[in-house]
Amino acid sequence: MNYRMVFNITGKVLRIEAVLMLLPALVSVLYKEWLPAISFGATSAIVFVLGLLLVKLIKPKNSFLFAKEGLVSVAVAWMAVSAFGAVPFVISGDIPSYVDALFETVSGFTTTGASILADVESLSRGALFWRSFTHWVGGMGILVFVLATSAKTTDRSMHILRAEMPGPIVDKFVPKARNTTIILYLIYTVLTVILIGLLMLGGMPFFDSVIHAFGTAGTGGFGMYNDSLASASPYIQWVITIFMLIFGVNFNLYFLILIGKLGSFFKNRELWLYFGLSLCAVTVITLNIYSSFDNFSDAIRASSFQVSSIITTSGFSTVDFNKWPTLSKMMLFVLMFTGGCAGSTAGGFKLSRVMILFKKLGNDLKRVVHPRTATVVKLDGKRLNEDTLNGVSSYFSVYMVVLFVVFILLSFDTGIDPAQAIETNFSATISCLNNVGPGMALVGPSANYGCYSYFSKILLAIAMLLGRLEIYPLLLTLNISTWIKK
Amino acid sequence: MNYRMVFNITGKVLRIEAVLMLLPALVSVLYKEWLPAISFGATSAIVFVLGLLLVKLIKPKNSFLFAKEGLVSVAVAWMAVSAFGAVPFVISGDIPSYVDALFETVSGFTTTGASILADVESLSRGALFWRSFTHWVGGMGILVFVLATSAKTTDRSMHILRAEMPGPIVDKFVPKARNTTIILYLIYTVLTVILIGLLMLGGMPFFDSVIHAFGTAGTGGFGMYNDSLASASPYIQWVITIFMLIFGVNFNLYFLILIGKLGSFFKNRELWLYFGLSLCAVTVITLNIYSSFDNFSDAIRASSFQVSSIITTSGFSTVDFNKWPTLSKMMLFVLMFTGGCAGSTAGGFKLSRVMILFKKLGNDLKRVVHPRTATVVKLDGKRLNEDTLNGVSSYFSVYMVVLFVVFILLSFDTGIDPAQAIETNFSATISCLNNVGPGMALVGPSANYGCYSYFSKILLAIAMLLGRLEIYPLLLTLNISTWIKK
Repeated sequence: MNYRMVFNITGKVLRIEAVLMLLPALVSVLYKEWLPAISFGATSAIVFVLGLLLVKLIKPKNSFLFAKEGLVSVAVAWMAVSAFGAVPFVISGDIPSYVDALFETVSGFTTTGASILADVESLSRGALFWRSFTHWVGGMGILVFVLATSAKTTDRSMHILRAEMPGPIVDKFVPKARNTTIILYLIYTVLTVILIGLLMLGGMPFFDSVIHAFGTAGTGGFGMYNDSLASASPYIQWVITIFMLIFGVNFNLYFLILIGKLGSFFKNRELWLYFGLSLCAVTVITLNIYSSFDNFSDAIRASSFQVSSIITTSGFSTVDFNKWPTLSKMMLFVLMFTGGCAGSTAGGFKLSRVMILFKKLGNDLKRVVHPRTATVVKLDGKRLNEDTLNGVSSYFSVYMVVLFVVFILLSFDTGIDPAQAIETNFSATISCLNNVGPGMALVGPSANYGCYSYFSKILLAIAMLLGRLEIYPLLLTLNISTWIKK
Repeated sequence: MNYRMVFNITGKVLRIEAVLMLLPALVSVLYKEWLPAISFGATSAIVFVLGLLLVKLIKPKNSFLFAKEGLVSVAVAWMAVSAFGAVPFVISGDIPSYVDALFETVSGFTTTGASILADVESLSRGALFWRSFTHWVGGMGILVFVLATSAKTTDRSMHILRAEMPGPIVDKFVPKARNTTIILYLIYTVLTVILIGLLMLGGMPFFDSVIHAFGTAGTGGFGMYNDSLASASPYIQWVITIFMLIFGVNFNLYFLILIGKLGSFFKNRELWLYFGLSLCAVTVITLNIYSSFDNFSDAIRASSFQVSSIITTSGFSTVDFNKWPTLSKMMLFVLMFTGGCAGSTAGGFKLSRVMILFKKLGNDLKRVVHPRTATVVKLDGKRLNEDTLNGVSSYFSVYMVVLFVVFILLSFDTGIDPAQAIETNFSATISCLNNVGPGMALVGPSANYGCYSYFSKILLAIAMLLGRLEIYPLLLTLNISTWIKK
């Protein structure tokens, strides 16, 4: 393996992180929070020097970047930015324990939004900004950002784009990978700015609007109020409901709109499934929870918000869905699994994979009967080859195995009340692996992950990274033989 | 499709069922229970006539039996024997509701052992016998039994054997399918008789020994005491612990012993995993629950019995493992999933599939890095081809999807306490799909499935059939297009 290239890329990513850290430092200065300002400033300086050393000292002998290096670079870079991103929280005293700070930072970058904080309102402005800003950066991808800003990007960088972008198939919009990433970040930024404007129109202060726009755009879910968005106005709740859904759509489709291909936009099967499933879930849940609300408008707003928050794996909440009837909770469980569209900032298994998996299963049933028949499976009019079909089935298998292993390892945590442990651990595993945020029972929307031991927190942080990077990059990196063999 | 052949086979199976039903009728007569005697006798007569009509009136134009007919025949036959097998329970008044009786009968034939009865001790002797006898018949396979007893079996019957025998690969011991089935039933019968003898040596009455031997041999779990085997002597508990494990071993291996190939027996990887996993689980659980027992011998007996009962998916119990710490409960969850060896009477995913799945996932990881490299995956020294690998991965996918769908549909049951619904429904789904029997929370070993609605009971009965027949046969049969297309 081309180790030098891996460390070189990690160095570049750390340099970018150092620059990004100046923003919370600036916020802290503006709000006259001197300790956080120094924490972010100092960490930024150290990370920058470290990044520079990696880039300058470990010169790659060649810039060959194969699939393996692409995958490993992404995993190593994500672990590095999380490890360093957690430091300012500890120095500033916002989150005194490093493991807690690491959990929060991984949760931020992976856009999970699971928190160990019981009182988020006591955080400094700088910490609040950094916490939500990690959502925004992690949502579209840290390395995608590096590609967008790096002039020397070669076309081999597609390996990195593929490893970091969620979904079964990653396409370039335009011939050059770098231009694709620039277009992606432009769409992302414009949508975020519109959202900030709409939130301010609803009377939300500028800082608060930025924080919530970051959380919504990255479909992360970190906010700045202890009750998430329960006391926000109906207008604010609806705006965020709609924008979470918008950020859960494949960004390729926005590009299609930009170049005027509206037809292709509306022909996308995944989009129809996405909205169909959301509508279906909202209907079922509204009917199911209606009786506990004063009026229909409150019920439909609560169910729409929660459905949008969960299918996009954002994790904001306006009500405690842990207290909902079993059927509604199950609907949310389903949405946690499926997640949003491929190529969006949403997590989960991705709806296009769900579609391919079901087509594959139907095809398997035919194969059981006629083992030697060649069958054609299509999606959006394009023929899916055997590799894609088996790839989705394999991904599903490894995904379920990872889910199961994390669920089992969590049961070693004796601090969880045995009567609620199965539901708590099961939902925590699903929520973290799918980058949702809140779970059920002891980790429900009105609770937090503070109840877990350090071991469990690290385990769940690994689950978040596995989920965000879609398992293989991290699994490959944690596999010793990757580093030993030539 | 060759409908006539499907109905012809179903007719033959019903004739056999009618004959088998004479046994509980005889038991009832011996115990002077006249109503049950009449119920079993009358049902037997009706089923025999019905079977005869199917065989005689629907003459197949040809005896072509392809994979499709094999799969559909098995599913239709299993549904038919369950539907008629439930009738005597209702007529005799042992289980007044037909849905309850159907649940109990499906649970019996599929060797699940999940019960809706709170007071099993109030059943008539005839009903108790039939209930446990279904375990014994279902364990090795109803159609395998038909094959063993039918003189006109052609070699095409392998399709039936393949559809009914659990596991990823089904081999014939000897050139003729019929001889294979006769050897299978001989081994099965001899082991059952030995078990009856050993139980009687421990002071268990003859009738009770037969009942428990049936439940153990089929790895079913229906007993005849309200506390399952909690008040049985340590000797009885140890004998059943060991015999459950014996019946969870691939029967092909016993054939290898019979023909003196001891080397091949001990070289079998699945067998090592089976005993290794059992030993590992017993160790972890004993350490975990030790403090709540008076002495070490009680703790190791309780953990050994429960581990043996769960890994073989029998479902007998001597203690309420629902009250165990989270870690021990999770160990049992893992064993519920894995199940025993392929080609045994145990249910679950089967250990050989677990091994193949992990080999496949390791292989996938290599493929991610080197997409075009051909890799060789071996098991027991034999090379596994691509179809077997993808087949196991596909089966795992469809298995998880079925699990998920059943879990979701169960949440429509409003009769389950929401605070315990997730754990109850989750464990009920796993337990029924894997043919285990008891679950956790409200369906734990000291409780029963009576808490569920009729809809849920039918759903869980379908899950048991799906699990026993390894999904495809039933899925294919429930698919309308199977019946319409030529």
